[in-house]
Amino acid sequence: MNRSQLFEQIKKKKSYLCVGLDTDLQKIPKHLLSSADPIFEFNKQIIDATHEYTVAYKPNIAFYEALGPKGWESLQRTLEYIPKDIFTIADAKRGDIGNTSSLYARAFFEQMNFDSITVAPYMGEDSVKPFLEFKNKWVILLAHTSNPGASDFQLLESNGRKLYEEVIRKSQEWSTPDQLMYVVGATQADKMQSIRALAPDHFFLVPGIGAQGGDLEMVSKYGMNKQCGLLVNSARAIIYASSETDFNKRAGEEAKKVQQEMEEQLLAASL
Amino acid sequence: MNRSQLFEQIKKKKSYLCVGLDTDLQKIPKHLLSSADPIFEFNKQIIDATHEYTVAYKPNIAFYEALGPKGWESLQRTLEYIPKDIFTIADAKRGDIGNTSSLYARAFFEQMNFDSITVAPYMGEDSVKPFLEFKNKWVILLAHTSNPGASDFQLLESNGRKLYEEVIRKSQEWSTPDQLMYVVGATQADKMQSIRALAPDHFFLVPGIGAQGGDLEMVSKYGMNKQCGLLVNSARAIIYASSETDFNKRAGEEAKKVQQEMEEQLLAASL
Repeated sequence: MNRSQLFEQIKKKKSYLCVGLDTDLQKIPKHLLSSADPIFEFNKQIIDATHEYTVAYKPNIAFYEALGPKGWESLQRTLEYIPKDIFTIADAKRGDIGNTSSLYARAFFEQMNFDSITVAPYMGEDSVKPFLEFKNKWVILLAHTSNPGASDFQLLESNGRKLYEEVIRKSQEWSTPDQLMYVVGATQADKMQSIRALAPDHFFLVPGIGAQGGDLEMVSKYGMNKQCGLLVNSARAIIYASSETDFNKRAGEEAKKVQQEMEEQLLAASL
Repeated sequence: MNRSQLFEQIKKKKSYLCVGLDTDLQKIPKHLLSSADPIFEFNKQIIDATHEYTVAYKPNIAFYEALGPKGWESLQRTLEYIPKDIFTIADAKRGDIGNTSSLYARAFFEQMNFDSITVAPYMGEDSVKPFLEFKNKWVILLAHTSNPGASDFQLLESNGRKLYEEVIRKSQEWSTPDQLMYVVGATQADKMQSIRALAPDHFFLVPGIGAQGGDLEMVSKYGMNKQCGLLVNSARAIIYASSETDFNKRAGEEAKKVQQEMEEQLLAASL
């Protein structure tokens, strides 16, 4: 999917919601455990209930990898089930020397046909570039994450720039806003504003509304650009809204609630 | 495996060789392709031919992941085949928010029983700690990698310390040399010496002899500590020494050659 197609979907659905498929056998409703593939069955029903409010799905790869080969089969089935007009994100945080990153790219872009993958920047240019060699496939580079440990290294300052700022600056030499997004977990207005200034045209994947805390209005006000430029992720608050047989209905209601808030924000930005 | 058991193996085998199992269907001998699981068959014969010269095996997870669920089965079989007195490294370069890193830890330490995993430090403490909660399991944290992109961020200087130095300094607050190693791809004597000074007791996983260039004598002279403290990886130079039916014999010969050089270095260090 390319950037204008993504923006089209955002306008059509009046939403920039990304639903995180952090699907955990210990958290899904008990009645699903007897199905042949409970993980896929859960995802399928979540997708059915949320897809009209959602422009992206983001399976967190660890949840599938922890289940061994079966988990990869559930992931593959899930990916095939997601409607083709919805953007898909492999939240994998990969990144290795060039020939190894090439293999990860093949795994997620060819074996599984994801639209994008999250990548860790620590190993630099040759660890990121192999992912950029696929047409209409995206790298979502970790810049400023939303976890407590973000402050350990990402905020270190060198030559007047914090590490995450340098990641954003440097990586723009490697690609364009047509193939590169950033993970920006900013929950403060001034920080979101300054990061947007560094990358005016890029999409940001924003974790941290819902169960992780945060503020959709602030993120939207200071983070939006003229093509929206935001995908805001929510996982647990939607997919685990209920642990009973009404889990899908409740997930749909929660997704709709977020979509309606997003519609207001898009309107406020005249998009 | 704990630190003294690892050192015992090093003394017994007079070797600190780690063989990288970067097993690629396009590179393994053609006659193996007709077997039921060519990746495992190749690894099995490589292990048979090299295990007496080797203290660690390091499957590069990308190579298996690129093959989908089947690749994970080959990996699992390989891991079960590796003799129990040999240290195993999942070269996965994972790292994510706490609950996600916990799942990666379960995948590699419980599902698959690896002794250790390589972890990327960008997301900081809570992305690393979940891996440290498993007894006698190890984190091998990326510090200074050997690829060209290493210079993009790892060498940035902040408060008088380069980023990789800060990673080494800071991470020592999280664990001890009994559970934490570092990836150190130093190919210059002064750099290896200064890194050793920062972490006198830790093991270093050193990539970059063989196909990636480097110098075993220099690494050993400036990197060894009183428990050896080095695992030096070689992949392609050993496993792809021949692409014919003699590949296993040739792999054994190459591994033996490296082991003999290592024996000299251990002797020079009175170990």
